[in-house]
Amino acid sequence: MIYNDTIVALATPSGAGAIAVIRISGINAIEIAHSIFKSINDKDLRIQKTHTLHLGHIFDGNKTLDEVLVSIFKNKKSYTGENTIEISCHGSTYIQQQIIQLLLRKGCRMANAGEFTLRAFLNGKLDLSQAEAVADLISSDNEAAHQIAMNQMRGGFSNEIVKLREELLNFASLIELELDFAEEDVEFADRTQFTELLNRIEFVLKRLIDSFSVGNVIKNGIPVAIVGEPNVGKSTLLNAFLNEERAIVSEIAGTTRDTIEDELVINGIAFRFIDTAGIRETTDLVENIGIRKTFEKIEQAQVVLYLFESLKFKVSGSQYIAEIEKVKNKYPLKPIIIVINKVDLLSENEKIGISQKLSTFNFQLSTFFISAKNNIGIEDLKEKLLSFVNTGILRNSETIITNTRHYDSLIKALDEIQKVKYGLQTNLSSDLMAIDIKEALYHFGMITGEVTNDELLGNIFANFCIGK
Amino acid sequence: MIYNDTIVALATPSGAGAIAVIRISGINAIEIAHSIFKSINDKDLRIQKTHTLHLGHIFDGNKTLDEVLVSIFKNKKSYTGENTIEISCHGSTYIQQQIIQLLLRKGCRMANAGEFTLRAFLNGKLDLSQAEAVADLISSDNEAAHQIAMNQMRGGFSNEIVKLREELLNFASLIELELDFAEEDVEFADRTQFTELLNRIEFVLKRLIDSFSVGNVIKNGIPVAIVGEPNVGKSTLLNAFLNEERAIVSEIAGTTRDTIEDELVINGIAFRFIDTAGIRETTDLVENIGIRKTFEKIEQAQVVLYLFESLKFKVSGSQYIAEIEKVKNKYPLKPIIIVINKVDLLSENEKIGISQKLSTFNFQLSTFFISAKNNIGIEDLKEKLLSFVNTGILRNSETIITNTRHYDSLIKALDEIQKVKYGLQTNLSSDLMAIDIKEALYHFGMITGEVTNDELLGNIFANFCIGK
Repeated sequence: MIYNDTIVALATPSGAGAIAVIRISGINAIEIAHSIFKSINDKDLRIQKTHTLHLGHIFDGNKTLDEVLVSIFKNKKSYTGENTIEISCHGSTYIQQQIIQLLLRKGCRMANAGEFTLRAFLNGKLDLSQAEAVADLISSDNEAAHQIAMNQMRGGFSNEIVKLREELLNFASLIELELDFAEEDVEFADRTQFTELLNRIEFVLKRLIDSFSVGNVIKNGIPVAIVGEPNVGKSTLLNAFLNEERAIVSEIAGTTRDTIEDELVINGIAFRFIDTAGIRETTDLVENIGIRKTFEKIEQAQVVLYLFESLKFKVSGSQYIAEIEKVKNKYPLKPIIIVINKVDLLSENEKIGISQKLSTFNFQLSTFFISAKNNIGIEDLKEKLLSFVNTGILRNSETIITNTRHYDSLIKALDEIQKVKYGLQTNLSSDLMAIDIKEALYHFGMITGEVTNDELLGNIFANFCIGK
Repeated sequence: MIYNDTIVALATPSGAGAIAVIRISGINAIEIAHSIFKSINDKDLRIQKTHTLHLGHIFDGNKTLDEVLVSIFKNKKSYTGENTIEISCHGSTYIQQQIIQLLLRKGCRMANAGEFTLRAFLNGKLDLSQAEAVADLISSDNEAAHQIAMNQMRGGFSNEIVKLREELLNFASLIELELDFAEEDVEFADRTQFTELLNRIEFVLKRLIDSFSVGNVIKNGIPVAIVGEPNVGKSTLLNAFLNEERAIVSEIAGTTRDTIEDELVINGIAFRFIDTAGIRETTDLVENIGIRKTFEKIEQAQVVLYLFESLKFKVSGSQYIAEIEKVKNKYPLKPIIIVINKVDLLSENEKIGISQKLSTFNFQLSTFFISAKNNIGIEDLKEKLLSFVNTGILRNSETIITNTRHYDSLIKALDEIQKVKYGLQTNLSSDLMAIDIKEALYHFGMITGEVTNDELLGNIFANFCIGK
């Protein structure tokens, strides 16, 4: 698909700043930029080399709009694979608007969301899963999500898929060949090698599908329920977790992130704390409405932090333990961490007393004595939380799936591959097997974009921001 | 002043977008960028030409942080006059933070507000009034303010001052020479020429000082009070004014400005509408508390739009006229425009009746019959509003002062120049005159930055955004 129009958009965040970048891409990008730009050295933009920068002024007729820097990227060497111009202007919203309006009058069209990356895809600069990773990269707000997106953008995931698809395609053509010689009952495709390939594909697909749950959790944050009575120290604990991270962030003026109240990034992994405030308002701990609400929250969580105040636990420990056992009976596989806060209020003997009480417990649960206020035991608790994510996977930079679309395609591809395998075992005729293989190839192609359609592309790129 | 450290800051608006630009400037800028960047062609950043662009990856140890474009600007050819690197990265706030943190670890220091422009000034790339214009340019939100800043940034204003200062300096040295030969009573400085110069300087200074009131109004918007009873159509009128402008703005997704509720830009001139809602709640129009509040608002305004509903005016016209006369008596010089809204509800005869009633008026006031809803008479009213700004001044791109600091210095310089003139007329001794001339030179120098001090620079650049 070749576009014969030229698109423009603001590529930097909207609002005022020191500078803003306006991006133009398309067949007439350089010509249009040339028509409104005068270099301070009187250089002609049209004959400048790719990847060069030029200082000058933007003119609207006789009126000078701004002093700007113009970057030139030519054809295959640009992000989109088309002639591309980036205008770096002063970051006044007024100037941004004026320049974009001028460009529209000069023949540019306003770019749709993600249209620059769409063009990059259509011009073969990146495949579909790499294009999707660009959007993930921009929205990544923690190290893990960032690394997965980075890995995917660099082709980690699609390379694997493309390689398997090619091998499968190879066998598919041999099977097709057999169909042409159906009368003669020959086998071009080596059945042993084919089985071996199918096993390999099945193995990779299963691994990728399995990685989705981890990937999804990393992308969206690990849901953690903090269960506890009011004033037990929930927000103090969240602040204690956040303390160092926030210090780093606020050091860099201008890059402070929007505070997401209930999301915390600990060592690069996002944790999403499920608000359990307001539950447990009554004092009847075991049988009340609160416990049902608590159950709902626990249902959504992947980890439960059960927070108690030390002095209260000393008094009502058995009652609390009964409650936790109730929870544990209902959710036997859900990891529960018991956290006794305000440990500084306890004597050593009292601490031992509580530990003994906890050992009467029917389940093996991790217990932490902390003081959120005095930053005691916080590091240990952090490590415990992190242990629920297989950070090893990240460190080995193995491929992790985070995209629901990929997940769906992989599930469908696996289904087809298993049909082919079954067909091979049951000596299914080549023509029926060829249909299943084609289906599998189709689903592989959907991931990397070798198979595509307008609706699919529309859905994918609609999630992009304008200017990318 | 030479800095031996290297500064870094985000140059684009904070928040997520397609791309973000991180700017590094200083003696080690290229070396530091080289230490974290690997070009896809394995090019060594340190030996690349100025004004070139390089695609590659930012590495933090073994971890890839992002795929980026790096721009190189060398020494005198950069904005700051120092080696400068701009890293254009993916616009995730996480990535922005990571790269800036990495650069801080590699030896950069976080830039202060306006420090890039401060360095540009200290390295002689622009004078002080040009530097100030950069901040004005970024904060300009209408055509008039933008053009004044643009003109000033290109040296329009300071060139004039610098030229006068040089001429004055020339005479000053001749006067100083006379002091050395005081015994001999010679005159090196031609008194006629000197008087001519002083007159010329006086003329320019007065013109610049006079331009301040226009300039200030243009920069901050012309305050307009809309006085009228509730439901008379105030917001419909504002919308009618805004209509075309807004249509243009919303066309460009991603560049929509923050809506300033009560500010309108009409043909490039900003009007600031002073909220008069809620006044005139009682029906006793002439003597009520409301009228006092109205007076307060009118006090602040430069133009008053007195808005009436046509049918009500038909009934209570005399009462309304009595009220306006009261206002006019209090503020005889304030331009008042009478606007009769909902003209479509009147017959031709009723219109004539109202016009006759208005002609009984003791003052000559412009009257407009409009329908804000049906867009009748809006264009005429706009033109009337615009007539209060001398747009001729703008079109001739004569120099206009908008900066209070410049205004103060010009007033002080004028004062000194008039002292010198008086001294010349009264044959004041050369040594006393020399003191006044030095004072005048000092105030000129304060404007362009030839005379400066840390406190002054601190004040000026503190108003800049980070990254500029």
